[in-house]
Order: sequence, then structure tokens, then C-alpha cells
Amino acid sequence: MKTKKVLVVGATGTVGTAVAERLTAVGHEVIRVGRRGGDLQVDIADERSVAALFERVGRIDALVSTTGELHFGALGEMTSAQFEVGLQSKLLGQVRLALVGQAYLNDGGSITLTSGIVGEEPILYGANATAVNAAIDGFVRAAATELARGVRINSVNPTLLTESEGVFGPYFPGFESVPAARVALAYQRSIDGVQTGRVYRVW
Amino acid sequence: MKTKKVLVVGATGTVGTAVAERLTAVGHEVIRVGRRGGDLQVDIADERSVAALFERVGRIDALVSTTGELHFGALGEMTSAQFEVGLQSKLLGQVRLALVGQAYLNDGGSITLTSGIVGEEPILYGANATAVNAAIDGFVRAAATELARGVRINSVNPTLLTESEGVFGPYFPGFESVPAARVALAYQRSIDGVQTGRVYRVW
Repeated sequence: MKTKKVLVVGATGTVGTAVAERLTAVGHEVIRVGRRGGDLQVDIADERSVAALFERVGRIDALVSTTGELHFGALGEMTSAQFEVGLQSKLLGQVRLALVGQAYLNDGGSITLTSGIVGEEPILYGANATAVNAAIDGFVRAAATELARGVRINSVNPTLLTESEGVFGPYFPGFESVPAARVALAYQRSIDGVQTGRVYRVW
Repeated sequence: MKTKKVLVVGATGTVGTAVAERLTAVGHEVIRVGRRGGDLQVDIADERSVAALFERVGRIDALVSTTGELHFGALGEMTSAQFEVGLQSKLLGQVRLALVGQAYLNDGGSITLTSGIVGEEPILYGANATAVNAAIDGFVRAAATELARGVRINSVNPTLLTESEGVFGPYFPGFESVPAARVALAYQRSIDGVQTGRVYRVW
């Protein structure tokens, strides 16, 4: 398989670390991007920061995003400002990476975003997470129909990570968790496979 | 059937007008709210405007939203600022109505938001619409699990309106349209029925 140049935004997180390890293990060149750590830094909520990242990196074969914040809290006390946290970060932040990044992808390249099981399976305090994750999966289905030059776009929709059970387990009663290393496979499947507009559930 | 006090935000639009007519015809008291027209005015993108609306109206039995803007345009030229149009208006605007309005609903009341077929069936230039509509349907599924005092929440997900065929028809090739009067039935079903967390497709 040809070596691909892959930009992983969120590479210092649990999923991003596993994705970078997997892609490196199969022979790809990975550029690790974090908010503070990694090879390069970006603030996905800042248009200029995202533009500067791509200008610096230049052409790539694959863009992976494993980042973005959500608001968790009781619906009865939720403000629209709190709801906007997920819209600006996990939703618009990832969409911004895709919109700006599309021009930097080589022909036949790919974009892979991250949603999550709560988009389909609501949990307590998860109204923002359900809306945002459903929107990301929706964006991917629609964007796939318009991307030019054979560029593909997919999302990975993981369930609770085994590594996060200690913190988030109580909010996912009876949910099976999956190790980040298993989730990472779905990103490789998106990058090295042929499909577009797909939501790869890992649950 | 007991007469209900129903606040219809977006009542001057094609769907909102049909909803107000239907609800009036079955004996409900309808307060029509528009951006400029109607009995009362509101800017759903403005937190204070929404708060002032509910303060003025007081307790209600049902909140209906049939409003919100989207961005339509080619993905290859789409900016994150354009994508944000739908996030701030149709998505966060409607969520804001629900978040602020929940406290003003009588026990057993209902909230009905509006999404659209493009959330599930992408069309050309519709990436923003797919993401936003999918998010609204997601929000409703999640919020239904947390609303207090028997308050229910649903969405109505219409296809292309027959009344809009002249303008939007070319973007919906081969889609069957439905008249607004048929779409209006789904809002009554949400208000006078028993279900919650439901997406009522009208297609």
C-alpha cells in the first residue's frame, strides 16, 4: 500500500493517539496536531488558525479529526450559550477543518470526522451531544455527494471508550465499551478503503 | 378536546400559516409570532428577544416552531461563516425556543420543532441543511428523555412543500411534494397526541 501523508487533528487525545499509532504501524506518514501538544497546534474554533495550519502543511492525502468539545448537562437548566459549546467546537470546528481542508487534499484523498454513539442513542445530560453527533454524521452523508476530484468523506461513530470508563461509565449504563485501538481501525478503513458518505459505527 | 393555548413561532411562513389555520379550526387558541408580522414578534437568534416573548405570553400548553434559516451553496466554496447561518438560525434558534420555553409550558404540554427531509436525503448544495435538520431531529430524541412534568417534544420533518415547488423544485428532482395543509396535520398530531421524542416525517 502506498504511504499516505495524513494530518491527524486531535492526535494527543485517546482516540487520536490510537489512530496515529495505527496509521504509523501500517506505514503512513502522520502529522500529529493538537490544541497544545503534537507536532503542530491548531484551534479548530478559529478560522485563521485552521487556515494557517493547512498553509503550513500543504498538500495531504488524508485529513482525520478526532477532536471537539460538547456540553453535558441537565436539559432543564441548559442555556443556549451552553448548547452552543458543542456547535462551535465539535460540530463547526470539524466542519471547518473539512471545508478549509478540502482544497489541500490530493485527488482521491479522504476526510474522516468523529461523531459518537450518543447521536443515535441518547444518554442523560446528552441533548447537546445527540444533536451535534447527529449533525456530523449528516454533514458527512451530504458532503460526500459534492466533494470534487474523488475526495471521500466519512465519519467514525464510536461508543464509550474502554479507556474512558472510569470517567464516563456512569453515564453509559449497560453500554459495551470498546478500546481505542479498535476504534482506530475504523479510521484506517476510511482512509485506505473506497467508501464515501459512510458512518462507521464502532459499537 | 380541551382548548389549548398554542404559541406558533414562524406563523407568517407557509407552514406556520397552515399550522395556525389547522389549530384554530380544531378549536385551539393560537398566538401567531413572526419576525416582523404576526400578533407578536421575535428574533430567535437573540436570547433576550426570546426571553421577552415568553415573559409576555406567560404559560402555554404548546410551543410550535416552524422557522429558521439555512445556508444553501456549493460545498467547494462554502465557508464556515456560511455554515454557521443554519447553526445559529434553524438549529440554535429553535433549540433556544425549546430551552427557554420549557419553563413556560403547562404540565403535559408539548414542544414541536421543524426539521426537513434533507436531514435524511441529501440534495445538491444542501450540506448545511442536512447537518442542521439531522441535529434538530437528534435534539428532539434526546430532549424527550429529560423534559419534566410530562412535557413532550417532537419534530415535524416535511419534504418539499407543493407551495414551494416553483422556487425549490429544481433542487428536489423526483421528490414528491406535499401541500402545507398536510404538513400541518403532523403538528396537530404532536400537540394533541401522546408521543414524545418522535420525528414525524411528512413524505
